[in-house]
Amino acid sequence: MKFTCEKSNLQEGISIAQKAVTGKSTMPVLQGILLKALGSSIILTGSDIDLSIETKIKADIIEEGDIVVDSKIFGEIIRKLPNDIIEITTKDNNSIEIICQKSKFTLIHMNAKDFPELPTINENTIFQIPQSILKSMIKSTIFAVAQEETRPILTGLLFEIKDKRLNLVALDGYRLAVKSEYIDSESTINAVIPGKTLNEVSKILEETDENVNITFTPNHILFTIGETKIVSRLLEGEFIKYQSIIPDEYNLKVIAKRSELLGCIERASLMGKDGNTNLIKLDIQGENMIITSNSQLGMVREELNIILQGQPLQIAFNSKYLIDALKIMDEEEISMELSSSVTPCIIKNNEVNNCTYLVLPVRLLNN
Amino acid sequence: MKFTCEKSNLQEGISIAQKAVTGKSTMPVLQGILLKALGSSIILTGSDIDLSIETKIKADIIEEGDIVVDSKIFGEIIRKLPNDIIEITTKDNNSIEIICQKSKFTLIHMNAKDFPELPTINENTIFQIPQSILKSMIKSTIFAVAQEETRPILTGLLFEIKDKRLNLVALDGYRLAVKSEYIDSESTINAVIPGKTLNEVSKILEETDENVNITFTPNHILFTIGETKIVSRLLEGEFIKYQSIIPDEYNLKVIAKRSELLGCIERASLMGKDGNTNLIKLDIQGENMIITSNSQLGMVREELNIILQGQPLQIAFNSKYLIDALKIMDEEEISMELSSSVTPCIIKNNEVNNCTYLVLPVRLLNN
Repeated sequence: MKFTCEKSNLQEGISIAQKAVTGKSTMPVLQGILLKALGSSIILTGSDIDLSIETKIKADIIEEGDIVVDSKIFGEIIRKLPNDIIEITTKDNNSIEIICQKSKFTLIHMNAKDFPELPTINENTIFQIPQSILKSMIKSTIFAVAQEETRPILTGLLFEIKDKRLNLVALDGYRLAVKSEYIDSESTINAVIPGKTLNEVSKILEETDENVNITFTPNHILFTIGETKIVSRLLEGEFIKYQSIIPDEYNLKVIAKRSELLGCIERASLMGKDGNTNLIKLDIQGENMIITSNSQLGMVREELNIILQGQPLQIAFNSKYLIDALKIMDEEEISMELSSSVTPCIIKNNEVNNCTYLVLPVRLLNN
Repeated sequence: MKFTCEKSNLQEGISIAQKAVTGKSTMPVLQGILLKALGSSIILTGSDIDLSIETKIKADIIEEGDIVVDSKIFGEIIRKLPNDIIEITTKDNNSIEIICQKSKFTLIHMNAKDFPELPTINENTIFQIPQSILKSMIKSTIFAVAQEETRPILTGLLFEIKDKRLNLVALDGYRLAVKSEYIDSESTINAVIPGKTLNEVSKILEETDENVNITFTPNHILFTIGETKIVSRLLEGEFIKYQSIIPDEYNLKVIAKRSELLGCIERASLMGKDGNTNLIKLDIQGENMIITSNSQLGMVREELNIILQGQPLQIAFNSKYLIDALKIMDEEEISMELSSSVTPCIIKNNEVNNCTYLVLPVRLLNN
């Protein structure tokens, strides 16, 4: 194998493929990046079996071939080289030579045959969506994915496609996040994608109108973003029927300025941090919401103008769950739908109905 | 105690005084900030006994007084409040009330009498120096302060004043850093200031021509920066006679472009990381310096144009020590003065003689 390419292209390619290399694998070859010199490109692949990322960069191929190099040291070497043409050649003794200006590295390589093959996926796109929209949808929901492995299915995000809408759904037993967008697809899909995969996908997605193409197989999802392909296994098992958790009706509705409400809750949560309960109490009545919290250090009282439709209510929450949702929402006015101090609270944008956040209240002793 | 002040002023004051609060003390009162309402100011003080920082902000004092509040929670509360006037009042039950717009906090406080008094220092300034210059001098030397406590005096930086020059000196047994600037003072001083103190001082110093005033007592140093006073104890004991370590003569001198040399050494060091030796070899001959390093992963060879005065030499270093010095130097051309493969290397700016870095070589088995 022998090729030359621009340092900046190679660095960019490595940084993408590297996102699948976790360093946690017991297979040494999975700490490497597969370099395949073919035609007029280098294909770089990183994998941890569950997730594989493949990307293509332009290169002058003098001799085709493929090898695997340690992802970390190879990435560091290329990053530190001058901005110029890099020449890479395989040598005897399982090594490659990397030359750039007056720098010359000799680096051992591993055998490309030991690198796991990517699952074959028939690339019939099931739907397309602008990168910026998918990026925002992931960001709007991924925080609600379960961090604990006790129910593995909840460590993933549901991609639900029906009625020409893509719904992303995450829930962790205490709260639920749903984000919904129109897509031009007649398919019906229910697939759960590991949160870890989507974290990496959202780093690769750019703030652009250009599309990402998405293909599903029974066990895998394929994201195609320009010259980059991301293949991830799906999580096995059935996702919770989230629609049945979301109440259809409510007894009272609060409309509030999002940034004001967020500020009040963030300040109130400063006192709740003691003992890690994050407990805050909301007293909703008339045109005001009073938010209080206390700890051994002292207490706090916040007051906020609201519009209340319905009866007054006192209810308590873990402030973290409200903050996570309010931080990511993008409308200036939000609505909270409530029924009692022991039933879920639904938070939505007040205008466009494209997201739903559900938060369970904390039951107090005197309720 | 009762006062009102601008949130931004109070936040700024807390962030300065807080720099002396380490949270490592067993005295609860030292996790607090002392607030003293006096005249038309609030004086905020943080201390860990060795280091105390006091700063003054403008306030409307309605009732004078002093209390101590937990530094962390008080800082977080003030930071999260809206940008507006804040009112703080002492209440019964050892608490203060903090009011800003519709936010109201009640926070327990500690007794100001328990807060340690700052050492009294007669404020006859011994010298003045522009803040930006002292900041740069600290940055240019502090990296060479010993991290280990085996020889406590080496965890400090020597402030040496003589012949109208201020010399800052740090050494850790493997390398030495000296930075020198003219000052308008006839004093002669030798004082060793804890590295930790100077870390905090350099964060408070601004990139401005305005002066910092410096006063010494037998046991303390006082930095006066605008409305802020920083008092630190000095380290006890005698600093090493560093001048006797710096060789007066050399057999060869290398002149090199700093950024090129730094780039070569940084790349070469990528291979030396294996096993944590950071070992790189320099082969100096004619118009070239060849830098090599190798590890189990492979090897690297870097080549650099230099001007050599004197005989060729092969010498080995821990790359970290060369990188630390070359990174912080500011001239485009540097000189290296060498005598043999087992004697120290001196690195200087090629033009202005205001800094000296000494690095010990690594003795190789075949030397």
